[in-house]
Amino acid sequence: MGLFTKDIETFEDLYQHQLQDIYYAEQQITKALPKMIAKATDPQLRAGFETHLRETENQIARLDRVFALEGHTPKGATCPAIDGIIKEANEVAGEVSDKSVLDAALTAAAQAVEHYEIARYGTLIAWAKQLGHHESAALYAETLEEEKATDAKLTLMAESKLNAEAELA
Amino acid sequence: MGLFTKDIETFEDLYQHQLQDIYYAEQQITKALPKMIAKATDPQLRAGFETHLRETENQIARLDRVFALEGHTPKGATCPAIDGIIKEANEVAGEVSDKSVLDAALTAAAQAVEHYEIARYGTLIAWAKQLGHHESAALYAETLEEEKATDAKLTLMAESKLNAEAELA
Repeated sequence: MGLFTKDIETFEDLYQHQLQDIYYAEQQITKALPKMIAKATDPQLRAGFETHLRETENQIARLDRVFALEGHTPKGATCPAIDGIIKEANEVAGEVSDKSVLDAALTAAAQAVEHYEIARYGTLIAWAKQLGHHESAALYAETLEEEKATDAKLTLMAESKLNAEAELA
Repeated sequence: MGLFTKDIETFEDLYQHQLQDIYYAEQQITKALPKMIAKATDPQLRAGFETHLRETENQIARLDRVFALEGHTPKGATCPAIDGIIKEANEVAGEVSDKSVLDAALTAAAQAVEHYEIARYGTLIAWAKQLGHHESAALYAETLEEEKATDAKLTLMAESKLNAEAELA
Protein backbone atom coordinates (compact mmCIF):
# COMPACT_ATOMS: atom_id res chain seq x y z
CA MET A 1 0.00 0.00 0.00
CA GLY A 2 1.14 3.53 -0.69
CA LEU A 3 2.82 5.65 1.92
CA PHE A 4 1.49 8.99 0.74
CA THR A 5 -1.95 8.08 -0.59
CA LYS A 6 -4.94 6.55 1.15
CA ASP A 7 -5.41 3.28 -0.71
CA ILE A 8 -8.62 2.24 1.04
CA GLU A 9 -11.29 4.70 -0.02
CA THR A 10 -14.54 2.74 -0.06
CA PHE A 11 -16.06 0.01 2.06
CA GLU A 12 -15.53 -2.34 -0.93
CA ASP A 13 -11.79 -1.47 -0.85
CA LEU A 14 -11.66 -2.33 2.86
CA TYR A 15 -13.45 -5.62 2.21
CA GLN A 16 -11.07 -6.50 -0.65
CA HIS A 17 -8.10 -5.75 1.60
CA GLN A 18 -9.51 -8.08 4.28
CA LEU A 19 -10.03 -10.80 1.69
CA GLN A 20 -6.41 -10.45 0.47
CA ASP A 21 -5.25 -10.50 4.11
CA ILE A 22 -6.96 -13.83 4.88
CA TYR A 23 -5.74 -15.26 1.53
CA TYR A 24 -2.15 -14.51 2.59
CA ALA A 25 -2.86 -15.81 6.12
CA GLU A 26 -4.24 -19.15 4.87
CA GLN A 27 -1.16 -19.61 2.71
CA GLN A 28 1.16 -18.94 5.66
CA ILE A 29 -0.85 -21.49 7.67
CA THR A 30 -0.33 -24.16 4.98
CA LYS A 31 3.42 -23.49 5.27
CA ALA A 32 3.38 -23.60 9.10
CA LEU A 33 1.27 -26.74 9.54
CA PRO A 34 3.77 -29.26 8.08
CA LYS A 35 6.33 -28.00 10.63
CA MET A 36 3.78 -28.42 13.42
CA ILE A 37 2.96 -31.94 12.16
CA ALA A 38 6.69 -32.78 12.23
CA LYS A 39 7.05 -31.51 15.82
CA ALA A 40 3.87 -33.01 17.33
CA THR A 41 4.48 -36.24 19.23
CA ASP A 42 0.93 -37.23 20.18
CA PRO A 43 -0.53 -39.25 17.24
CA GLN A 44 -4.02 -37.78 17.76
CA LEU A 45 -2.65 -34.22 17.66
CA ARG A 46 -0.57 -35.00 14.57
CA ALA A 47 -3.61 -36.51 12.83
CA GLY A 48 -5.63 -33.41 13.79
CA PHE A 49 -3.03 -31.12 12.22
CA GLU A 50 -2.95 -33.29 9.07
CA THR A 51 -6.74 -33.04 8.74
CA HIS A 52 -6.53 -29.28 9.27
CA LEU A 53 -3.87 -28.93 6.57
CA ARG A 54 -6.22 -30.56 4.03
CA GLU A 55 -9.06 -28.34 5.28
CA THR A 56 -6.88 -25.22 4.91
CA GLU A 57 -6.05 -26.17 1.30
CA ASN A 58 -9.79 -26.47 0.66
CA GLN A 59 -10.37 -23.09 2.36
CA ILE A 60 -7.85 -21.51 -0.04
CA ALA A 61 -9.77 -23.08 -2.96
CA ARG A 62 -12.96 -21.46 -1.53
CA LEU A 63 -11.18 -18.08 -1.47
CA ASP A 64 -10.14 -18.63 -5.10
CA ARG A 65 -13.85 -19.11 -5.88
CA VAL A 66 -14.67 -15.86 -4.02
CA PHE A 67 -12.11 -13.94 -6.10
CA ALA A 68 -13.54 -15.47 -9.31
CA LEU A 69 -17.17 -14.76 -8.28
CA GLU A 70 -16.29 -11.12 -7.61
CA GLY A 71 -14.24 -10.76 -10.81
CA HIS A 72 -10.81 -10.36 -9.22
CA THR A 73 -7.49 -12.17 -9.62
CA PRO A 74 -6.53 -14.00 -6.39
CA LYS A 75 -3.97 -11.92 -4.54
CA GLY A 76 -2.56 -11.88 -1.00
CA ALA A 77 -1.75 -8.85 1.17
CA THR A 78 0.99 -9.27 3.77
CA CYS A 79 -0.71 -9.82 7.12
CA PRO A 80 1.54 -8.87 10.07
CA ALA A 81 -1.01 -10.44 12.46
CA ILE A 82 -0.68 -14.03 11.19
CA ASP A 83 3.09 -13.54 10.73
CA GLY A 84 3.29 -12.56 14.43
CA ILE A 85 1.12 -15.46 15.60
CA ILE A 86 3.24 -17.98 13.62
CA LYS A 87 6.52 -16.35 14.73
CA GLU A 88 5.45 -16.64 18.36
CA ALA A 89 4.44 -20.29 17.88
CA ASN A 90 7.87 -21.10 16.40
CA GLU A 91 9.73 -19.22 19.13
CA VAL A 92 7.88 -20.97 21.95
CA ALA A 93 8.08 -24.41 20.30
CA GLY A 94 11.82 -23.89 19.82
CA GLU A 95 12.23 -23.37 23.57
CA VAL A 96 10.48 -26.55 24.72
CA SER A 97 12.40 -29.75 25.37
CA ASP A 98 9.78 -32.06 26.95
CA LYS A 99 7.55 -33.84 24.40
CA SER A 100 4.20 -33.53 26.20
CA VAL A 101 4.93 -29.87 27.02
CA LEU A 102 5.72 -29.31 23.33
CA ASP A 103 2.38 -30.87 22.35
CA ALA A 104 0.59 -28.52 24.77
CA ALA A 105 2.46 -25.52 23.28
CA LEU A 106 1.59 -26.60 19.71
CA THR A 107 -2.08 -27.05 20.64
CA ALA A 108 -2.21 -23.55 22.17
CA ALA A 109 -0.50 -22.08 19.09
CA ALA A 110 -3.01 -23.77 16.79
CA GLN A 111 -5.88 -22.34 18.86
CA ALA A 112 -4.45 -18.81 18.53
CA VAL A 113 -4.37 -19.32 14.74
CA GLU A 114 -7.96 -20.65 14.74
CA HIS A 115 -9.22 -17.65 16.73
CA TYR A 116 -7.52 -15.25 14.33
CA GLU A 117 -9.36 -16.93 11.48
CA ILE A 118 -12.67 -17.01 13.40
CA ALA A 119 -12.42 -13.22 13.92
CA ARG A 120 -11.54 -12.54 10.26
CA TYR A 121 -14.15 -14.81 8.68
CA GLY A 122 -16.80 -13.34 11.03
CA THR A 123 -15.89 -9.87 9.75
CA LEU A 124 -15.80 -11.04 6.11
CA ILE A 125 -19.28 -12.59 6.38
CA ALA A 126 -20.77 -9.35 7.80
CA TRP A 127 -19.07 -7.15 5.19
CA ALA A 128 -19.81 -9.47 2.22
CA LYS A 129 -23.53 -9.54 3.11
CA GLN A 130 -23.59 -5.76 3.40
CA LEU A 131 -21.88 -5.36 0.02
CA GLY A 132 -24.24 -7.84 -1.66
CA HIS A 133 -21.59 -10.59 -2.11
CA HIS A 134 -24.03 -13.22 -0.84
CA GLU A 135 -22.40 -16.25 -2.49
CA SER A 136 -19.05 -15.20 -1.01
CA ALA A 137 -20.67 -14.85 2.43
CA ALA A 138 -21.99 -18.42 2.16
CA LEU A 139 -18.49 -19.70 1.26
CA TYR A 140 -16.93 -17.85 4.23
CA ALA A 141 -19.63 -19.32 6.50
CA GLU A 142 -18.60 -22.87 5.48
CA THR A 143 -15.01 -22.08 6.43
CA LEU A 144 -16.03 -20.39 9.68
CA GLU A 145 -17.87 -23.54 10.79
CA GLU A 146 -14.76 -25.63 10.04
CA GLU A 147 -12.54 -23.26 12.04
CA LYS A 148 -14.91 -23.34 15.02
CA ALA A 149 -15.05 -27.15 14.87
CA THR A 150 -11.24 -27.36 14.76
CA ASP A 151 -10.94 -25.02 17.75
CA ALA A 152 -13.46 -27.13 19.71
CA LYS A 153 -11.56 -30.34 18.80
CA LEU A 154 -8.27 -28.77 19.96
CA THR A 155 -9.88 -27.76 23.28
CA LEU A 156 -11.15 -31.31 23.84
CA MET A 157 -7.78 -32.78 22.85
CA ALA A 158 -5.88 -30.46 25.21
CA GLU A 159 -8.21 -31.24 28.12
CA SER A 160 -8.25 -35.02 27.62
CA LYS A 161 -4.44 -35.07 27.20
CA LEU A 162 -3.97 -33.06 30.39
CA ASN A 163 -6.43 -35.25 32.31
CA ALA A 164 -4.72 -38.43 31.11
CA GLU A 165 -1.38 -37.09 32.31
CA ALA A 166 -2.90 -36.14 35.68
CA GLU A 167 -4.13 -39.73 36.10
CA LEU A 168 -0.68 -41.12 35.31
CA ALA A 169 1.07 -38.71 37.69
CA MET B 1 14.81 -16.48 25.92
CA GLY B 2 18.13 -18.11 25.22
CA LEU B 3 19.24 -19.06 21.75
CA PHE B 4 21.26 -22.11 22.72
CA THR B 5 19.36 -23.42 25.73
CA LYS B 6 15.81 -24.68 26.03
CA ASP B 7 14.24 -22.29 28.51
CA ILE B 8 10.87 -24.03 28.78
CA GLU B 9 11.47 -27.34 30.47
CA THR B 10 8.33 -28.07 32.45
CA PHE B 11 4.64 -27.56 31.95
CA GLU B 12 4.81 -24.92 34.71
CA ASP B 13 7.50 -23.07 32.68
CA LEU B 14 5.23 -23.12 29.61
CA TYR B 15 2.31 -21.81 31.69
CA GLN B 16 4.47 -19.03 33.18
CA HIS B 17 5.59 -18.04 29.69
CA GLN B 18 1.97 -17.85 28.54
CA LEU B 19 1.10 -15.69 31.55
CA GLN B 20 3.98 -13.30 30.79
CA ASP B 21 2.90 -13.24 27.14
CA ILE B 22 -0.67 -12.13 27.98
CA TYR B 23 0.67 -9.62 30.53
CA TYR B 24 2.73 -7.99 27.77
CA ALA B 25 -0.23 -8.23 25.35
CA GLU B 26 -2.64 -6.50 27.76
CA GLN B 27 -0.15 -3.68 28.21
CA GLN B 28 0.22 -3.21 24.45
CA ILE B 29 -3.58 -3.12 24.20
CA THR B 30 -3.79 -0.31 26.80
CA LYS B 31 -1.32 1.62 24.62
CA ALA B 32 -3.24 0.91 21.38
CA LEU B 33 -6.75 1.69 22.66
CA PRO B 34 -6.30 5.46 23.21
CA LYS B 35 -5.19 5.74 19.56
CA MET B 36 -8.27 3.79 18.47
CA ILE B 37 -10.49 6.03 20.65
CA ALA B 38 -8.94 9.09 18.99
CA LYS B 39 -9.60 7.69 15.49
CA ALA B 40 -13.14 6.36 16.02
CA THR B 41 -15.85 8.71 14.76
CA ASP B 42 -19.00 6.86 15.83
CA PRO B 43 -19.79 7.94 19.44
CA GLN B 44 -21.04 4.45 20.37
CA LEU B 45 -17.85 2.83 19.08
CA ARG B 46 -15.70 5.39 20.89
CA ALA B 47 -17.62 4.80 24.13
CA GLY B 48 -17.19 1.05 23.65
CA PHE B 49 -13.41 1.43 23.28
CA GLU B 50 -13.31 3.67 26.39
CA THR B 51 -15.16 1.04 28.43
CA HIS B 52 -12.80 -1.62 27.11
CA LEU B 53 -9.75 0.45 28.09
CA ARG B 54 -10.97 0.56 31.71
CA GLU B 55 -11.72 -3.18 31.55
CA THR B 56 -8.22 -3.89 30.20
CA GLU B 57 -6.64 -1.94 33.07
CA ASN B 58 -8.69 -4.07 35.47
CA GLN B 59 -7.58 -7.22 33.62
CA ILE B 60 -3.95 -6.22 34.14
CA ALA B 61 -4.71 -5.78 37.87
CA ARG B 62 -6.12 -9.34 37.86
CA LEU B 63 -2.90 -10.61 36.26
CA ASP B 64 -0.93 -8.79 38.99
CA ARG B 65 -3.00 -10.75 41.52
CA VAL B 66 -2.22 -14.00 39.68
CA PHE B 67 1.54 -13.27 39.83
CA ALA B 68 1.21 -12.48 43.58
CA LEU B 69 -0.88 -15.61 44.29
CA GLU B 70 1.72 -17.78 42.56
CA GLY B 71 4.67 -16.02 44.25
CA HIS B 72 6.15 -14.35 41.17
CA THR B 73 7.05 -10.76 40.28
CA PRO B 74 4.84 -9.46 37.43
CA LYS B 75 6.80 -9.62 34.21
CA GLY B 76 5.96 -9.43 30.51
CA ALA B 77 7.40 -11.50 27.65
CA THR B 78 7.45 -9.90 24.19
CA CYS B 79 4.51 -11.31 22.26
CA PRO B 80 5.03 -11.10 18.48
CA ALA B 81 1.39 -12.13 17.97
CA ILE B 82 -0.21 -9.09 19.62
CA ASP B 83 2.50 -6.85 18.11
CA GLY B 84 1.51 -8.16 14.66
CA ILE B 85 -2.23 -7.75 15.28
CA ILE B 86 -1.75 -4.13 16.45
CA LYS B 87 0.70 -3.35 13.62
CA GLU B 88 -1.84 -4.58 11.08
CA ALA B 89 -4.62 -2.52 12.71
CA ASN B 90 -2.48 0.64 12.50
CA GLU B 91 -1.46 -0.05 8.90
CA VAL B 92 -5.04 -0.58 7.72
CA ALA B 93 -6.43 2.38 9.72
CA GLY B 94 -3.70 4.57 8.22
CA GLU B 95 -4.91 3.70 4.72
CA VAL B 96 -8.57 4.60 5.22
CA SER B 97 -9.92 8.06 4.39
CA ASP B 98 -13.71 7.70 4.77
CA LYS B 99 -14.96 7.97 8.37
CA SER B 100 -17.54 5.18 8.37
CA VAL B 101 -15.08 2.86 6.58
CA LEU B 102 -12.49 3.71 9.24
CA ASP B 103 -14.97 2.82 12.01
CA ALA B 104 -15.59 -0.54 10.31
CA ALA B 105 -11.82 -1.17 10.09
CA LEU B 106 -11.34 -0.26 13.77
CA THR B 107 -14.19 -2.54 14.83
CA ALA B 108 -12.66 -5.46 12.88
CA ALA B 109 -9.23 -4.77 14.39
CA ALA B 110 -10.69 -4.76 17.90
CA GLN B 111 -12.37 -8.11 17.21
CA ALA B 112 -9.06 -9.63 16.10
CA VAL B 113 -7.54 -8.44 19.40
CA GLU B 114 -10.48 -9.88 21.38
CA HIS B 115 -10.17 -13.27 19.68
CA TYR B 116 -6.45 -13.39 20.44
CA GLU B 117 -7.26 -12.84 24.10
CA ILE B 118 -10.13 -15.36 24.04
CA ALA B 119 -7.71 -18.01 22.71
CA ARG B 120 -5.02 -17.19 25.30
CA TYR B 121 -7.27 -16.98 28.36
CA GLY B 122 -8.93 -20.25 27.30
CA THR B 123 -5.50 -21.91 27.27
CA LEU B 124 -4.49 -20.27 30.58
CA ILE B 125 -7.65 -21.52 32.32
CA ALA B 126 -7.04 -25.12 31.16
CA TRP B 127 -3.35 -25.05 32.14
CA ALA B 128 -3.90 -23.28 35.50
CA LYS B 129 -6.50 -25.88 36.51
CA GLN B 130 -4.18 -28.70 35.54
CA LEU B 131 -1.30 -27.17 37.54
CA GLY B 132 -3.51 -26.61 40.60
CA HIS B 133 -3.60 -22.80 40.27
CA HIS B 134 -7.35 -22.76 40.88
CA GLU B 135 -7.63 -19.15 42.11
CA SER B 136 -5.73 -17.99 39.05
CA ALA B 137 -8.06 -20.02 36.81
CA ALA B 138 -11.07 -18.26 38.39
CA LEU B 139 -9.48 -14.85 37.75
CA TYR B 140 -8.75 -15.74 34.10
CA ALA B 141 -12.37 -16.94 33.74
CA GLU B 142 -13.66 -13.49 34.83
CA THR B 143 -11.52 -11.85 32.14
CA LEU B 144 -12.53 -14.41 29.50
CA GLU B 145 -16.20 -13.60 30.07
CA GLU B 146 -15.46 -9.87 29.65
CA GLU B 147 -13.56 -10.50 26.40
CA LYS B 148 -16.40 -12.62 24.99
CA ALA B 149 -18.95 -9.95 25.96
CA THR B 150 -16.83 -7.23 24.29
CA ASP B 151 -16.54 -9.33 21.11
CA ALA B 152 -20.32 -9.87 21.06
CA LYS B 153 -20.93 -6.12 21.59
CA LEU B 154 -18.56 -5.29 18.70
CA THR B 155 -20.39 -7.76 16.42
CA LEU B 156 -23.75 -6.16 17.28
CA MET B 157 -22.30 -2.68 16.80
CA ALA B 158 -20.81 -3.56 13.40
CA GLU B 159 -24.06 -5.14 12.19
CA SER B 160 -26.35 -2.32 13.39
CA LYS B 161 -24.01 0.32 11.92
CA LEU B 162 -23.94 -1.46 8.57
CA ASN B 163 -27.72 -1.91 8.55
CA ALA B 164 -28.27 1.76 9.39
CA GLU B 165 -26.03 2.76 6.49
CA ALA B 166 -27.89 0.38 4.15
CA GLU B 167 -31.20 2.07 5.10
CA LEU B 168 -29.73 5.50 4.38
CA ALA B 169 -28.25 4.44 1.04
